[in-house]
Order: sequence, then C-alpha cells, then structure tokens
Amino acid sequence: VPGSSLNDAFNAADFEALARDKLDEGAYGYFAGGAGDERTLRDNIDAYARTTLRPRVLVDVSGASAATTVLGADVSMPLLVAPVAFQRVAHPDGEPGTARAAAAAGTVMCLSTLATASAQEVAEAARGGPRWFQLYCFSDRGVTEALVDQAVDGGYQAIVLTVDAPLLGRRERDLRTGFAIPADLEVPSFSRAIGGRREATLQDMFKLLDQSLTWRDVEMLAEISDLPVVVKGVITSEDARLAVDHGAGAVVVSNHGGRQLDGVPATLDALPEVVDAVDGRVEVYVDGGVRRGTDVATAVALGARAALIGRPVIWALAAGGEEGVARLLGLLRDEVELALALLGCPSPDALGPEHVAAPNRHR
Amino acid sequence: VPGSSLNDAFNAADFEALARDKLDEGAYGYFAGGAGDERTLRDNIDAYARTTLRPRVLVDVSGASAATTVLGADVSMPLLVAPVAFQRVAHPDGEPGTARAAAAAGTVMCLSTLATASAQEVAEAARGGPRWFQLYCFSDRGVTEALVDQAVDGGYQAIVLTVDAPLLGRRERDLRTGFAIPADLEVPSFSRAIGGRREATLQDMFKLLDQSLTWRDVEMLAEISDLPVVVKGVITSEDARLAVDHGAGAVVVSNHGGRQLDGVPATLDALPEVVDAVDGRVEVYVDGGVRRGTDVATAVALGARAALIGRPVIWALAAGGEEGVARLLGLLRDEVELALALLGCPSPDALGPEHVAAPNRHR
Amino acid sequence: VPGSSLNDAFNAADFEALARDKLDEGAYGYFAGGAGDERTLRDNIDAYARTTLRPRVLVDVSGASAATTVLGADVSMPLLVAPVAFQRVAHPDGEPGTARAAAAAGTVMCLSTLATASAQEVAEAARGGPRWFQLYCFSDRGVTEALVDQAVDGGYQAIVLTVDAPLLGRRERDLRTGFAIPADLEVPSFSRAIGGRREATLQDMFKLLDQSLTWRDVEMLAEISDLPVVVKGVITSEDARLAVDHGAGAVVVSNHGGRQLDGVPATLDALPEVVDAVDGRVEVYVDGGVRRGTDVATAVALGARAALIGRPVIWALAAGGEEGVARLLGLLRDEVELALALLGCPSPDALGPEHVAAPNRHR
Amino acid sequence: VPGSSLNDAFNAADFEALARDKLDEGAYGYFAGGAGDERTLRDNIDAYARTTLRPRVLVDVSGASAATTVLGADVSMPLLVAPVAFQRVAHPDGEPGTARAAAAAGTVMCLSTLATASAQEVAEAARGGPRWFQLYCFSDRGVTEALVDQAVDGGYQAIVLTVDAPLLGRRERDLRTGFAIPADLEVPSFSRAIGGRREATLQDMFKLLDQSLTWRDVEMLAEISDLPVVVKGVITSEDARLAVDHGAGAVVVSNHGGRQLDGVPATLDALPEVVDAVDGRVEVYVDGGVRRGTDVATAVALGARAALIGRPVIWALAAGGEEGVARLLGLLRDEVELALALLGCPSPDALGPEHVAAPNRHR
Repeated sequence: VPGSSLNDAFNAADFEALARDKLDEGAYGYFAGGAGDERTLRDNIDAYARTTLRPRVLVDVSGASAATTVLGADVSMPLLVAPVAFQRVAHPDGEPGTARAAAAAGTVMCLSTLATASAQEVAEAARGGPRWFQLYCFSDRGVTEALVDQAVDGGYQAIVLTVDAPLLGRRERDLRTGFAIPADLEVPSFSRAIGGRREATLQDMFKLLDQSLTWRDVEMLAEISDLPVVVKGVITSEDARLAVDHGAGAVVVSNHGGRQLDGVPATLDALPEVVDAVDGRVEVYVDGGVRRGTDVATAVALGARAALIGRPVIWALAAGGEEGVARLLGLLRDEVELALALLGCPSPDALGPEHVAAPNRHR
Repeated sequence: VPGSSLNDAFNAADFEALARDKLDEGAYGYFAGGAGDERTLRDNIDAYARTTLRPRVLVDVSGASAATTVLGADVSMPLLVAPVAFQRVAHPDGEPGTARAAAAAGTVMCLSTLATASAQEVAEAARGGPRWFQLYCFSDRGVTEALVDQAVDGGYQAIVLTVDAPLLGRRERDLRTGFAIPADLEVPSFSRAIGGRREATLQDMFKLLDQSLTWRDVEMLAEISDLPVVVKGVITSEDARLAVDHGAGAVVVSNHGGRQLDGVPATLDALPEVVDAVDGRVEVYVDGGVRRGTDVATAVALGARAALIGRPVIWALAAGGEEGVARLLGLLRDEVELALALLGCPSPDALGPEHVAAPNRHR
Repeated sequence: VPGSSLNDAFNAADFEALARDKLDEGAYGYFAGGAGDERTLRDNIDAYARTTLRPRVLVDVSGASAATTVLGADVSMPLLVAPVAFQRVAHPDGEPGTARAAAAAGTVMCLSTLATASAQEVAEAARGGPRWFQLYCFSDRGVTEALVDQAVDGGYQAIVLTVDAPLLGRRERDLRTGFAIPADLEVPSFSRAIGGRREATLQDMFKLLDQSLTWRDVEMLAEISDLPVVVKGVITSEDARLAVDHGAGAVVVSNHGGRQLDGVPATLDALPEVVDAVDGRVEVYVDGGVRRGTDVATAVALGARAALIGRPVIWALAAGGEEGVARLLGLLRDEVELALALLGCPSPDALGPEHVAAPNRHR
Repeated sequence: VPGSSLNDAFNAADFEALARDKLDEGAYGYFAGGAGDERTLRDNIDAYARTTLRPRVLVDVSGASAATTVLGADVSMPLLVAPVAFQRVAHPDGEPGTARAAAAAGTVMCLSTLATASAQEVAEAARGGPRWFQLYCFSDRGVTEALVDQAVDGGYQAIVLTVDAPLLGRRERDLRTGFAIPADLEVPSFSRAIGGRREATLQDMFKLLDQSLTWRDVEMLAEISDLPVVVKGVITSEDARLAVDHGAGAVVVSNHGGRQLDGVPATLDALPEVVDAVDGRVEVYVDGGVRRGTDVATAVALGARAALIGRPVIWALAAGGEEGVARLLGLLRDEVELALALLGCPSPDALGPEHVAAPNRHR
C-alpha cells in the first residue's frame, strides 16, 4: 500500500497490510504465524464470519454506551489488549506505547512475561490505565515469584496465567526464517532467568519454563499475592470447571492465537461450553480472531464479559507506534458502539444469546 | 464490456457490469457496497443460491400470469422497486425515470426520503403507477411531518418506515473514496432539513435523523395520515410480532441490503421466522439479494407477498436511464412468469412452502 | 489439447475438452449450457461428488457383469444414451452414428423428437439395438400422433414423454451467441410441423409445442400405441405417485440437464424420494450429472434401474463421430464393471442403499 | 524449491515438494495419484482438517512419551510405515533404506509384495526393527505360499493381507504417462510369478492376482503360518465384524490411499464405525491422509492403535534416501510427542474420544 498512512487505515485488516510492509519477514511471520498448518489460526477468524447476529429494531439507542467493567474495574468497552511478547520487535514504542494507547482508550493492557520492557516501565507509561500481568511460570520458582512481586509493585490488577504452553507450539514460519530476538533487545524476565543477555529464540526461552504445572499450582499462585489469577488457555468445559474449583479469578477462552496446538477449536466455538460450565461463578473472556466490533458483540452475546485483541494491536503498533494503537482502539470502540446501537442494545449488558442465531435457525 | 449495449444485457448481473463501466468509483462503491466485511451483502445473494425449488409437472400453464396485489393494489408481478437514495448520482433520469419505468411495468415504485427528486416530481412521472414513500424520521419532527404530507399529496399509497438505521452503517467503500453528494444535486428532504444546500456525505445527512425512535413512533406515524405504515427492516420473529401489535400495515424483511450491520442473516433466511410470527395478519415483503425470477418465486413460496429489488434497478438506470430500468423490469417479469410456469404454478398464489426443498431433504 | 486424439481420452471429461476444441461457440454453448445461473447444471455433477460409497471386500467378483434389463430388454450395463436434440450440429454422423455406437455397446439409444435424422433412418442404423423415442407433444396433435406412429413403425420400444418443458428454459448462452439451427440441417419433426424448412432457434420450435399438457394426456398417449410411456422430468414424490397412477410405464428423474428451471434439485438428490414414492411399481431411471462408472453405481444403489447419459455422448460424437461414442461407451462400461467389482457386487442387482453412506454417517 | 535441502524440510508437505522436483512425471504421478477423480485421495486429508481436537491443560507432561505397542511389540510412537510398492523407483536406497530408517526410528516397516527388494534383503537391513509383510494373493497359490514362507523366514511379525484390490483401481495419471516398471528394476515376487523379468505395468502384475478371494481365504491364510493376519482395506462395520469372525489378527481401515475405488469415505470418517464393530477384540489401524502428529493423535483418540503413513515416506525417500526417511520419521515423532503434551496426554493410552470434538459440538 505505497504512500498509505495511518489515516487510510479504517479497520484491523488495513493495519495488518501496513505492518506487513514495515516489518521484515521474520518479525512479520513471528507475529502473524500459527502452529502447524495454521488451521486454528484461520478458524479463529472464520468462526466469527459464520456466526449470524439477530438485531432488534426501534429501541432508543440515543444514549448507548459500550462501557462495562472487568474484574470490577471500569473499561470503556468490552475489549482488552491481549498480552503479546516482544513488542519492541514491532516498533521502538514497544509495550510502553501500547500501554499509553490502551490507557488513553480506557481499557486494560495485558503485559507479557516476555515483554521487551519492564513491568515498572510499563506501569509508569500506563499510569491511570487498568493493567494486568501475563505470567509464564519458570522452572526456577524464584524467577516466577519475582515476576509476581513486580506485578504487585507495578499496580497490576491481575495475574493472567497462561496454561496452554507447557511446550512451545511448532510454528514453522519461525523455523523457516530462523527468527530470534536480537541480543540488543532487552527481555527483562529472560535476562533475569539466565543472569544476562544473548540472542535467543522463543524456543530457547521456553526451555526455562516449567512443564510440570498442574491445577495445584494455580492455587499456590493465588496465595503468593492478593491479585486474582486469571487462567488463560481453557477451551473445554472440563477445564473450565477445574479452573473455578481451583480458585481461578476468571477464565480466558484462548488457544494462544492458534500458535500452540493446531486443530483445536476456534475460541468462539469453545466459548459456549466454557460459559455453561463456569455458570456465572467467575468472568469469562475470549481471545483469538477478534477483528471487528461485531465480533466483540458476538462474544459478549455468547457470554464473554470481554474479548481480548492481540495481533491487530501489534499491526497498529508496527504501523504507527503508540499513535497507531490509539487509532486502532478508537476505530474498534466506534465499531463496538455502532454494533450495540444497531443490535438494539444500549449497553453490553443488554446483549444475550438471543442476539446470535442458533445454527439450526440458519438454513 | 466494450461496445456492449442494453440489448446485450440479459439478466441483472449484466446490468451491473454495464453500470460499473459507466459510474465513477465513488458512485459505484456507494451503490454496490455494504457494511463492514460485506458478509451479509454476499449472504443475501448466496441464500437464494443455496435454496432448492421443487417444481411440479403436467399442470396446464397456458394461461399463467404473474399478476398479484400488494396492499390491495394490482401489480403485474410480485416484484416491486425498492427505495434507493440519490438516483441522479446514477443517471440524470433519476427517480422520475425509475418511476416511469416501474409504472410502465405495472409495479410499485418506492421513493426514498433521500431522493434527488421531489415526491411531487416523481408522482407526476409515475402517474398511473402505484407508488410508496420511504420515510426516515428526522429529529426535527416538522420535517418528518412535511414529508408525510408530501407523500399524501403525491398520491403515494403507503409509508415505508425504515427502522434499521438509527445510525448509519459503516460502509468502508465510502470512507475510502470519500463519496459525497455534490452540492449541485438537489436532495429536497435534506435541503428542507438544513434550510439550504451544500455538499454532504450520507453521514452528514444521518446526523439529522432521530436515533430515539421506538415502536410508539410507529403508532404515532400511523395517526398522521391514512396511509398504511410498512415497517421495513424487521428480521426477527420478536420484532415481527411487535410490528403487527403496534399497527404496522405490512412488514419488509430487510437488512438494508447488507449496508447497516454486517453479520445479520440473509433476508431469505430470516423470512420464514417473520412469516410465522406475522401469521397472516399483514403482508410480508422481502428485499436483499433478489436477482432472478426464481428468487422472486422462492420468496413468495416461503410466504412473502412480494419481493423488492434495489441495486439491479440502479445498475439498469446507470446503464440506460429509464429505458434501462424498463428493459430490466421486462426481463425480470419474463423470468418470474417462466419460473411460475416451470414450477407448475399458474399464478403466484399457487406457490407454497412445498415448492421449496426443506434443508434436510437436501443430502 | 493440441494434437490429442480419441486415444488420449480416458474419461468423459477428456471428451468434453476435445469437443470444446472442435465445436464453434454457439454449438458448444448450446450443448453445454443450462438455464439461468447454471446452478442446477453444476449441482447435478456435484451431487455425485458429495456422495460416499461403502464398498464390501472379499466377495468373489471373478465372474462379475454389469448386464441388466430395462423394461424387460437386455442391456450390457445400467447406462443408457439419453435423448439429445440436433446431434448433426455436433458431427455429421449425428443420431445414426450415436445409434450404431449404442447398439454395438449393447445399450439403449433414446432418439429426440428434435433429431436431425428421421426415426426410420436411426432405426436402420441401430438395427439390433434397443431404442426408445423421446416425445414432445405439439399443439397440433396430428404431428404428435404421426411421431408416435413413426416410433412404432421404427421398432422403438418405448415413448419417453418429456414433461418438464411446457416452455423453453432460459438458456443465456444461446441468447448471447444467437445459436440457431441452420436451414440446411434437416429436423424432420419441425419440417413436418411447419410444412417446410427454415433457420430456427429452439425457441421457435418450442412455440409449436403444447403448454397445456396434463396427466390426462399421459393416459391418452398410452392409448395411442402399445408402447410404454416413460415419463421424463419428474423430481418430486408427488409427481412420481401421479405418474404411476396415470399409467406411466416408467419414470425418469430428470431436470432436463439443468436446462429448464435453474434452482431445482440435483437429480441424484431427488432420486430417493421418487424411488420411495414409486415403491417398485415401475422402473425409475435418472439422468443428469452422470460422468463416471461410480456415478452409475451410486444411482443404481439408490434405486435407479439405470442411468442415462447425455452431454458426454455429444462430446464424444463431436470428438470422433460414431467411433468417439463407441470409445466413450466402452470406457464407461469398463468403469461400471470395475465399480461393481470394487464394491463387492457381482451384478447391478447386488447394489443397494447400504452401499451409499447416509449423510449423517459422514462427519 | 531450488537449492533446498533436507534440512529445509520441516513437515511432510515439504518432502513432497522436494520429491516432485526429483522424480520424473510418471514416477511422481504413480506415487501421488489416486483413482478416478481423486475425490477420496483428497478427502483422506480433508477429513483430518475438519476434525477438531479438545486439549486439556495443567497436566504434568514433563515425562510424556509417544511409545506404545502394536500386536504386542514395542514401537516408539503410534505411527508405522505403510506398505508401498516399487520403492526403488523413488530412490536407489529403496525398501532397505526405508527399513533401516524405520528400525532406527523404532517403528514398524511394512514391506509390499510388490517391493523392488526381496523380503530377505529388507529383513537384513531392518535387523532389530519390527517388520510386517504385506501380501497380495496370486492366482497361483504356490507363489502366495512362497511369499508367506519368505516372510516367516525373514522374521516378519505379521502378514498384512490387502483385501480392497481384487482388480486394479483406475488411476488415470498412469494411463496418461504410460508408467511402467522398467525391466532392469527387480520385483522379486513378479519375477517368481512369471518365471523371469520384463517391463511391466501395475496392470500386468495385477492380472496375476486372485479375484475370487473370500473371507474363507483369510482363515486358510491364518493356518499357513503362525503369523497374525492383519486385514487391510476394511471400511465398513459389516466387514469389520466379518474380519474378526474369520480370524483376523488386526484390521487396517484403509481405502488404499484413494487408489482403488474413488468415492469411498475418508478413512478417518470410516474409523469410528470399524472401531465400534470390532469392539476391542483386535487392534485397529488406519492409513490414508496422515500428514501430521496431530493426525496421529486424532486417529488414536478415535480408537486406532496406530496410524500408518505411506506417501510421505516415499517423498522423503525420493528426496534423500534413507536419510530423508529418517528425518521425516524424526520430525513426525517430535510432532506426535508435542501433540500429546499439548493435549494433556502423557502417553497415547491417555487419548480418548473426549479429545475429539463431536461434529455437533462444532457450530
């Protein structure tokens, strides 16, 4: 898209086109790619495309608003920024830039354990904005506990524990490009774990993580701090029940953006069984494939408290740094508000399963 | 299609090809485009393509006719001309040209509030032809009432109230081309509302409309004049029931041609639940995706009293003005008549659900 | 396929490629085309592709044979040559060439009313081969009766009455090419009906046909001669029952090769409901979309006594005259025999519904 | 893929690309092709792509292993090397090379009757590796018995009797290229049967096989030696029951890689009905379409003891001889192990139907 600028980006797909232009193949492939044949990667998006909305008319929507709460905190819309690693690979603004944009948009920023900025630096950038800390557990429990301490110190309001990655998924784009994080890009958690810095692949970093985690560790983690533990990576009713039973503060229906095990369900398809199993005891979020305001409305109608968005944020960051992310989040908030209005819902709470067509209603 | 002419147009798709050649990108995109990812836009058409007809043989169809009635008025076929705004953007003949062609074809012309000709001018053009007036309610109720008065004065036989557009849908083609209505093209309702004329986008015009309409307004509107209020934009059984309960004179199953909320059902898919809910109390019409005589027969078989056709009329108007529209409507009437004969139906009233294969009959 | 010859044709699709090369656009389009958007044309073929066969193993098939009977007459396989009009447009060998090839292959040739050879000429060519006569009823009943008399005189063993064409389907390929039958190509039935010869389109010819035929005419036709009346063009259970009740000697499930009403079911999809309704009282045949020996086996497994094949015969005729048709029929007989053997069926009678997977067995 | 090497092959598809480059058209077409329109060939692969896995999280998988047993023998993973004929057409390393790689990978090599190496030669190559012998029954029972004797002598641990090929399927790629096995490539079983050697097509060889085999022959075969008779080519519940009743030692759900009867179900779709019918009395294997570790996990979850892989082994052999096969099997073992870990299964035995989404769970 030669000569195009942020102002020509009208939706999430436009930002991806801009980013593809700016990033080298390795970086683009790292963020864009999925595991195996990338079936789940595509299905995450397709699942929204095969869902049909049922709008109601002649409802007064002159005062409609997308505002809601997550874990009790106010957000401007039911759409949060998902944790994504290595954001300075996309743009020098990195995680602090994303955090500033999210705070300005009035929504949650989730910081990855594998961030290229420290939890403290991001906390300062996002001052005033709600923020959660995504946690990978290291085999060295000292490292893990230090990460939790930093999250507490930085005013993060939740620990988002990723549970679908005991081993790294097979992402063939990275194998082909040989993508690695250059040594001059700081990854504080990794440096702490190895006591220094060097060029490293994601595989190198994953070797430091704990493959033997069980539900008992969720309970232990909940005791380390007062922060709620949000379990991210649940896509079955069985695990949803276990999560609640073991003290999860919330659940994220996630397949790691199709980057771990190829062939698992689209998250939107898994959402109903998780929502049913959780049965209102904790909030349920969903990530993967969210590209439109109508996608957010669909997820909320099917029982999600909010959706999280990952790759589009990276494309916006790559395309225009903090300013890009700000524009993206602004467009998405407009889309969510418009979707609510055209569905006849003055607020997210008005959305329910009756706003989504049952498959058997569709001929 | 270089060198091709109206005589080379044998179906609705041919007219679109001709029109695409004649219109500039902004105008073509305005008429052709839909909201968001244009899923619903495509699905409106696909829904007909996935429907299967069950024809009966050895019925005497030597005297077959497509003639029927809508709201008690005679029409030559169960296919009406849908309201479409700004028709002089497509061709100087504009709405009066379309109205003359519709009258000559013996069917209803629906005039848009956002027409580029006055209700009076069109009434004169369509003299003898049945005509309905599509209404957007302005925040300034005086404007709205003046529009209704004009419709009454112009001999329009129904008010078609659009209810699926409290806000303007997000049509990205228009955002990309910057499509606007030039100041030298008169839009009488808009001029009246702002007390003058200027270049304006559709968004500018929608800002003047009332976002707080409710079913109570349908009742109030029914009291302003003696004209029946046809509620256009209902695609759920719930709203279909409310429409009848609040005095609607008829219902149009419509998703605004896929231009308002992307992801809503194809209108043909929504038709059965609306027909069931209305249960014969008022007539039900359907628009969106109708391109063939067999589509019209399908809609009628599933309970529609008639179908409405929008974009193809615009393509025909762009391709050849009034003459183009006349040729298109002639071709479509031939197609409807042929479809009836080959279905073994001497008239539209002979069509029923038994002429459409149930999904589960199709392997 | 430059330089390719009959010997390079290994299946029906190969013959179409050869024919497309040899025929001018009008002739190719006439034979290849269907009505409207050609949905049914495609679906006839797709229906076989979405059907799954269930083969049985370790059955002794060393003496397997495809031979069967239709209307009591022996045929070498459950595949007959369908009636197709104007075969000399495809190749000078015309209907007599096709008839000789069919007789040599040991199967039925159906001669079209709109043949470019007389019933007598074809009877002489097919001497020894079983032959049926396809009938269109003219408004002038004298013409119709003369055609039946010719069939009787020529030793034809059945009248195949086409019932799905009270009017000619809308075949846009012909409208675009202006395809017409040149005056120097004799169409005996047409010459008789108009008392002379002239260039004519199919539409011109159809204007001479009777649009008011009803089931009563089937009964009357059965009384004109001793030949059984095979009703061709039934695709619903309702009409299948009526056919049997009104004295049909057999039924052909046909949608006229997708050339009459677009949007009707693939014939394979309609076959089960017709077979159920007929309930063994007469034989049921099916045409449309048959391209492979496995398609023939599928049709027979679902209750057809035999399938009919039309377009591929024309492609073979165009590609190599009588010799082409002979090669095609030979290949297809080999395919049918192989399909039977690999399904574990020593003869067509061994095929049953258990050899086709129910849709719900397929995940 | 100019300049690419084995090290650039990261999955089965990569090996096919390399092989396509190296093999001439006839050889590539022979190995790649299927019967008829190759519907079943494609569906074998598609069936895995439309299946969804349900992974469980927070299971300790730090000690996970893919090891299992087949017919009581240890294998490193539930993935065996399928029998494929004429491997020296792909690479001079031929069957001995494949056998060495399989032995090194700790899994079963199945040797084809139509191998280009003797059973003895392969036995020596695979010393220490588990090996099975695939059997075609010749009309000359002496040849058949000699083959079984060789298998016994060579330490093969099972006879894999192919039952879906009483006649050779119609593989049009071979008809077009005229593919034949050159006279200078030894096919020991064929030479024995005709008492010499000459160039021959697969069709020539199949003419020597017995088309009259029945289930009784399975019983007789089981008596010739002590080896279990694995019946390969069963895809219905009826035949699965017959296999067990007639003494089969195991069953392979196979459609001969889509090379025999086109239109039969994908093997993965047939697996559940076979597993149900066998009801645990013997082990069930499945081949066809397996390309990924997740495919192996899917097959095992649905009741297969192991899957077999054919074409990818040939592509790897063509690409790099024994070394290529070794790399392929290594990659696949890694994939299987990763799939198990990410499904939350420490071993293949932990997989069950609950790890595959029921079709109706998927919207």
